[in-house]
Amino acid sequence: MSEVRAAATARPLPKIVALGGGHGLSATLSALRRLPGELTAVVTVADNGGSSGRLRKELGVLPPGDLRMALAALCGDDEWGRTWREVVQHRFASEGELHGHAVGNLLIVALWEQLGDHEKALEWVGRLLGAHGRVLPMSAVPLEIEAQVRGHDPARPEELATVRGQVEVASSPGRVEAIRLLPENPPAAPQALAAVREADWVVFGPGSWFTSVLPHLKVPELADALAESGAKKLVALNLAPQPGETDGFSPQKHLEVLHDHAPQLRIDVVLADAGTVKDSAGLEAAAAGLGGEVVLEPVAMGDGTPRHDEKLLAAAYDRIFRTHGRIGPWR
Amino acid sequence: MSEVRAAATARPLPKIVALGGGHGLSATLSALRRLPGELTAVVTVADNGGSSGRLRKELGVLPPGDLRMALAALCGDDEWGRTWREVVQHRFASEGELHGHAVGNLLIVALWEQLGDHEKALEWVGRLLGAHGRVLPMSAVPLEIEAQVRGHDPARPEELATVRGQVEVASSPGRVEAIRLLPENPPAAPQALAAVREADWVVFGPGSWFTSVLPHLKVPELADALAESGAKKLVALNLAPQPGETDGFSPQKHLEVLHDHAPQLRIDVVLADAGTVKDSAGLEAAAAGLGGEVVLEPVAMGDGTPRHDEKLLAAAYDRIFRTHGRIGPWR
Repeated sequence: MSEVRAAATARPLPKIVALGGGHGLSATLSALRRLPGELTAVVTVADNGGSSGRLRKELGVLPPGDLRMALAALCGDDEWGRTWREVVQHRFASEGELHGHAVGNLLIVALWEQLGDHEKALEWVGRLLGAHGRVLPMSAVPLEIEAQVRGHDPARPEELATVRGQVEVASSPGRVEAIRLLPENPPAAPQALAAVREADWVVFGPGSWFTSVLPHLKVPELADALAESGAKKLVALNLAPQPGETDGFSPQKHLEVLHDHAPQLRIDVVLADAGTVKDSAGLEAAAAGLGGEVVLEPVAMGDGTPRHDEKLLAAAYDRIFRTHGRIGPWR
Repeated sequence: MSEVRAAATARPLPKIVALGGGHGLSATLSALRRLPGELTAVVTVADNGGSSGRLRKELGVLPPGDLRMALAALCGDDEWGRTWREVVQHRFASEGELHGHAVGNLLIVALWEQLGDHEKALEWVGRLLGAHGRVLPMSAVPLEIEAQVRGHDPARPEELATVRGQVEVASSPGRVEAIRLLPENPPAAPQALAAVREADWVVFGPGSWFTSVLPHLKVPELADALAESGAKKLVALNLAPQPGETDGFSPQKHLEVLHDHAPQLRIDVVLADAGTVKDSAGLEAAAAGLGGEVVLEPVAMGDGTPRHDEKLLAAAYDRIFRTHGRIGPWR
């Protein structure tokens, strides 16, 4: 083997960081796990609904649900990984006190209580699942989302109201204009900062724009690390506006609110579904305003639902990483 | 290597079955796991208190607590096994709905619901813990213990009352005279029957005599399998009478009630703590009545508490298996 080839073989795997929460982050992780790379998910901790909301209230812990979903999306491909994923995702159904709790949420919280260390506990759940990557909370303190919502009261469609709580924001009939986090300026999780600083690629979205994608940018240390990181930044746009959050938003409008929430952030690539974008010139202009270019790829399921096909999304990410990467192709 | 030595090396490990529940079974398993052998615990499923009682009521499942404790006692010796044991044994403490639930109970129940198979689910928890042996429920249906208790009402010390429920029996101020199971004649778990039939040794006790040791004998198929099995049978006596259950019981009285509950059962060895037995002639006579002999060994902690020292108990089991075994020494 020549020295050149040996060096190529020894090149470290690219480091990829995905920011988000909920189903959007799961879709991205289900795609990214198919590619070679060291994968880290940095997950929002502002959920206040369902099993997570109850655990947060009862035990004073971080809401574990988005972390659990991210870990489940990364589970091993074998019987071991699939079995524990099913268990972790299992929800009790009864007329009693356990109804609606996801088993993985209880397991994550138990590990937090037992080990007293968020990252270490999540690493253990990752080991349980044989996870292809690691999952970190974006902050070590539970957060609240507070939004400015136009028309929260349908009787007064032009009025701007302050709405607090992820569930309340996501279910408002109005249109979200901006969010902030409470407490303001929460500390970032140190491992999440390190991951962003060392990343080759950072991926934003898809997902609930105001409640899963933008919150990361309102953690000042994380926003600074993102702005300073030498990583290439990719925004994966949603396939459709989300009722309540982004009703009536064009693809470029998503980029505008991203810019509003993190004016210093530059974006290298905006990935959108080829079949979804109507005004590609408008989107290109918005992307250029952030310093980036648009890549149109077929990434939708193709069944009419606004869901990403994980194989198509993986192929799109792969092509982008190969052609736009600062480290070039690695295979 | 000579053919004789090769054959000796290839001899299968002895099959050991431990019957019981609660802390007594944990003590026996903590000892037996130190010895070479294929270890199976067959565990009572009549608990109606605490986390197990609540799960049973809310979700209609077997009470998982005694199964969890047995699995925890068998956990691997490495960081993996110890960490998951701590998690499985972790109990939530709050002022809310999760207070008092053991995480392992929730995990076992989730696997039951997910896989629809008691044994397979417990095998998965065993794999999680890196368990030295397997754990089976004695029956696939949740059971109730019903006891005849003399002096349940302290105002009428000679009256015999019927007391239902493991918690109620264990906490009665009276003296238990006999127990039965509800439903009567419950089906045994098939794998538990097979384990008893194939065993080289079956170990009863130590433990709560009426609520952890004797219930197995009231499952007719299990009692028949025990009577018919070619296995040697060992009874490990408690170090002290248990208030409520066996107040004022001599060691031989424990053997008498064992005989009362399973008249056809023969016992080969009765293991008692050398320092605990006052009337060794009386105990020997009682053991002889069951077809067995008494072995006195130092097995107590030595700190004045009535707890077994797992190393001393392991050494005692080892000596008994070597000198009384139908298969002889295997090391």
